[in-house]
Amino acid sequence: MKTMGIGELYLVEPKRFPDPEADVRATGAVDVLQRASVVGSLDEALNGCVFAVAMSARQRDLGPAVGQPRETVARLLVEAGEGQVALVFGNETVGLSNEDVLRCQAAVSIPTDPAFSSLNLGSAVQLLCYECRMTAFAGRPPVAGQGVTPFASPAATADETEGFFRHLETVMTATGFFNPEQPGRLLPKLRRLFGRARLERDEINILRGILSATQSQTGHGRKG
Amino acid sequence: MKTMGIGELYLVEPKRFPDPEADVRATGAVDVLQRASVVGSLDEALNGCVFAVAMSARQRDLGPAVGQPRETVARLLVEAGEGQVALVFGNETVGLSNEDVLRCQAAVSIPTDPAFSSLNLGSAVQLLCYECRMTAFAGRPPVAGQGVTPFASPAATADETEGFFRHLETVMTATGFFNPEQPGRLLPKLRRLFGRARLERDEINILRGILSATQSQTGHGRKG
Repeated sequence: MKTMGIGELYLVEPKRFPDPEADVRATGAVDVLQRASVVGSLDEALNGCVFAVAMSARQRDLGPAVGQPRETVARLLVEAGEGQVALVFGNETVGLSNEDVLRCQAAVSIPTDPAFSSLNLGSAVQLLCYECRMTAFAGRPPVAGQGVTPFASPAATADETEGFFRHLETVMTATGFFNPEQPGRLLPKLRRLFGRARLERDEINILRGILSATQSQTGHGRKG
Repeated sequence: MKTMGIGELYLVEPKRFPDPEADVRATGAVDVLQRASVVGSLDEALNGCVFAVAMSARQRDLGPAVGQPRETVARLLVEAGEGQVALVFGNETVGLSNEDVLRCQAAVSIPTDPAFSSLNLGSAVQLLCYECRMTAFAGRPPVAGQGVTPFASPAATADETEGFFRHLETVMTATGFFNPEQPGRLLPKLRRLFGRARLERDEINILRGILSATQSQTGHGRKG
């Protein structure tokens, strides 16, 4: 939950707390455990909450309809405009009781493969917290390194690109790979390839360097 | 991965395999481990793959642009129409090397809280497999054309692409343009360029044809 920017944890009647094993497993998120509120009942945990979503692998007879994570989290965030909201998880073994689910205004299930649906508790928490973060940031939360242009050098200009194509054609003709009398679709295909790549100026220089080196070898001389 | 309906696992040079601890942790998914393919290199794992996405917490200098999970997975599923695709994860401690990332056509990062971004490997795998399942069953399959190049010919597989890079290196070395003793950043730059283009099989044939023609001229003979 901490990796997704969520820090408020309520523990309802934990068997052991604090627990050295929990601390070890939390690694860098021990502060979340240390700040956790330990309460005696789900009612107490939900005190003051305007909207609670129960994690539930199946539809309960009288429980709220079980929704998909994305739509349910979207509603959770809308309700968060009104007051505190909560995601409610049961324990690893038996999940939430019917009574617990009925204390929540919505229920959510993660659409696992029916052939193997045993998602563990940690994974379920991870996935729902991730959906909260994705939805909170409108599907585009900041990613490390984004905004940094993936292009290291300025894009090549049209004339630079054309210079490369002429150079390539010269070399291909000299080596006999390309016959200007019977051009076929070779040149358009190469334009399509390098057009997709959106060549940079440095890359043009590298490609023309390769071509020039070939020409010095074969003694055809460089031509722009 | 099994909870999300994904069953094909490749392990590159695992320290221990099979490993009793891994079996215990896998609980009901031991069959995925038992069917896992153990290989000696990432190249071997990607043999036959048309599109690979590298998990990368940060943008690498020459690596593909790091995208959001949802959009990247949408593209992965489009590419899956062309052939086998892969999600590539590094180990828990150091992640993928720059070399590994450069063997992939796209990169993805999970938008964790910058204040606490240490998502463990299991969680990262869980989240991306979940996105695959959500996208695959979203009812509105991703359409080619949005940031995705529709391919006229089958996409090149990783081994075909590696064959081209070896061929190119051979020619560049023979002509003196590339000095294997002082490689600099030439090869990564070329990988980045052609990685962006997402080569097709026909294009590989054209490019290798150009290289071979050069070699017959200079009398170096062809080498794959």
